[in-house]
Amino acid sequence: MVEQLTVELGERSYPIVFFGGADAGVFVLEKIRQTGRSVTALADSKVWDLHFPKNDDLLCLKIEGGEASKSITCFDNACEFLATNRIARDGGLIAIGGGVVGDLAGFVAASYLRGIDFYQVPTTLLAMVDSSVGGKTGINIKAGKNLVGAFWQPQVVYICTEFLKTLPPEEFSAGMAEVIKYGMLYDAKLFDQLEALEHDLTWDHPELSAVVRRCCEIKAEIVKADEKETASSGGRALLNLGHTFAHAIENVAGYGTYLHGEAVAIGLVLAAKLSVRLVEAGRSGFAVSDEDVIRCHALIERYRLPTDLRISLHRVAGDLAAPKLSIEALLDAMRRDKKVRSGKLRFVAMEKIGNAVTVDDIPEGWIRDIWSEAGAE
Amino acid sequence: MVEQLTVELGERSYPIVFFGGADAGVFVLEKIRQTGRSVTALADSKVWDLHFPKNDDLLCLKIEGGEASKSITCFDNACEFLATNRIARDGGLIAIGGGVVGDLAGFVAASYLRGIDFYQVPTTLLAMVDSSVGGKTGINIKAGKNLVGAFWQPQVVYICTEFLKTLPPEEFSAGMAEVIKYGMLYDAKLFDQLEALEHDLTWDHPELSAVVRRCCEIKAEIVKADEKETASSGGRALLNLGHTFAHAIENVAGYGTYLHGEAVAIGLVLAAKLSVRLVEAGRSGFAVSDEDVIRCHALIERYRLPTDLRISLHRVAGDLAAPKLSIEALLDAMRRDKKVRSGKLRFVAMEKIGNAVTVDDIPEGWIRDIWSEAGAE
Repeated sequence: MVEQLTVELGERSYPIVFFGGADAGVFVLEKIRQTGRSVTALADSKVWDLHFPKNDDLLCLKIEGGEASKSITCFDNACEFLATNRIARDGGLIAIGGGVVGDLAGFVAASYLRGIDFYQVPTTLLAMVDSSVGGKTGINIKAGKNLVGAFWQPQVVYICTEFLKTLPPEEFSAGMAEVIKYGMLYDAKLFDQLEALEHDLTWDHPELSAVVRRCCEIKAEIVKADEKETASSGGRALLNLGHTFAHAIENVAGYGTYLHGEAVAIGLVLAAKLSVRLVEAGRSGFAVSDEDVIRCHALIERYRLPTDLRISLHRVAGDLAAPKLSIEALLDAMRRDKKVRSGKLRFVAMEKIGNAVTVDDIPEGWIRDIWSEAGAE
Repeated sequence: MVEQLTVELGERSYPIVFFGGADAGVFVLEKIRQTGRSVTALADSKVWDLHFPKNDDLLCLKIEGGEASKSITCFDNACEFLATNRIARDGGLIAIGGGVVGDLAGFVAASYLRGIDFYQVPTTLLAMVDSSVGGKTGINIKAGKNLVGAFWQPQVVYICTEFLKTLPPEEFSAGMAEVIKYGMLYDAKLFDQLEALEHDLTWDHPELSAVVRRCCEIKAEIVKADEKETASSGGRALLNLGHTFAHAIENVAGYGTYLHGEAVAIGLVLAAKLSVRLVEAGRSGFAVSDEDVIRCHALIERYRLPTDLRISLHRVAGDLAAPKLSIEALLDAMRRDKKVRSGKLRFVAMEKIGNAVTVDDIPEGWIRDIWSEAGAE
């Protein structure tokens, strides 16, 4: 099975190739080599060892998974690796791994020799449905997450759910947070479909491929309309539903305390609560009910994701408290967020399930309340 | 006097504003503030102290001049500086200084929050005629110079030769290497004009402004035709006349041993010699004579620039030897150059003075000979 979807971006358009079957690693290397490019890889070391042939002579820099690898140091090392191996402007770089590897490798590809070709081979659910598509690349600096990077579109994204076979369950769940996000912000039918599944999605669930593909379609549509997130309202920023909260959580708790998808799960619940406050305040267009919040909450919990700051079912024992986060520190981190414009905090809220908008004028008191209800102090 | 020249690049077009008079620092800050942008500066510390008002409250990160500042560490520091000062996507960054500051600040502006607006205020002759125009930004890594960066066009370039009043004489000369380069590669009239000057150009020479402006015009024309240096022959790569040699010299001698302009001066002489070899080998189109090489040599020496690896008139006593450079190391550095395509060394050579072309098939033996004649071992 090989199917294809095009991300339409004029001269920067590219295909997402969906393929199936075992030996995904062998298949993808063969495909990329058919382009005739001299290629090099940055790969998640675990994925590389599990899925790629030992005897392949592809030049590959192995990267440890985890946010710590999205650093200036790893960026520097990767550029030195390409340079000492004499990769020229007509060479290409393959990212093999999750969001961390894709974001890092994308920024390396954008910057090395002022830009070389780039191929995405996402091997986590989160990277397949979100970070590998759309061209956002970047690294973290001390002051915050993804604060340094580039828009750099790949030449091709290769997606095979076979890679998910070896993904740890908490990583699969983390990806589900982004899947649920697409339902909440853009596609009520997808949300309904996820709710109606008799069995939870797993790497070998018969509907997984279609769900992944639908998420990619949504992302492609949104990115096509607003590639560089310059729309004055709505647009690509909608993909950040829950993320203003999530980035603050990750920043204050310390990267790695929560998985990105776990922080997004919490952020989605908080964004739903924020949406209800907009209804209560009589804002026109907003029609989210308490019932809708419960539905979001339930779907997120179903994948053992946290819904407030206190509990992360996969990662701590049920009765173990998460680190106490300070409301002031969280607000401070939000003010440093990239989405801040002219000093105003910007949020994404749901008018209803399947329809989100950007909102610039949320009273700070609401945000304090929401953080407090979530367990911050 | 305020004149303007447009760099035509479609939606990325921008003006180069030429202005005169004292208090250049005050003038330029006023101009940029009129845009209504909230701006921050990265400035050469010496230039900042000499030319900018002490009581101005512009947020400014001072940078030490010299190639050592084009590092990953300085890049990281500058990004942290912007983030901790909460510069948002609608903020702007002003580069005030020479090529080092402009290249560094440009890559910071390209990468911080995946790109913010950028203003160039070049304060060296080299930056005015070359590095501030055209959108090439970058930093050095261990493996080589400018190997990491981005194409990122400024919003405006502000040029005032008043800033050159305080430029050390060797830096003025280094800029003259790039000025002479434009004559050699594109404009025989400019070359003739430089030869015919009764007095050498200095910061207050009546013809300097017109010469600077002519260089900017040439650069704008070439960049317009091939913004990202993707032309299969000729195009923007022509601006690298002498630079394949120059980058190798800087890399092997150690950055800072020669000023960039000094290395370019040597490179220009070697490129002229290479051009004569092409004539001798009967390559069609090439018509450079030994006389032409002498003319180039003389014009370069007139500005006290080195014409081989042995002598740098400004920086070492006439009888002091420069560091001995190894031919193998120089060739090795050339092979790592960004201009390498499909493993082949790429050079720019003159068909005649005022007309350059790219050449891909130079025998390695010629390059060895040329390095040897220049004093490498």
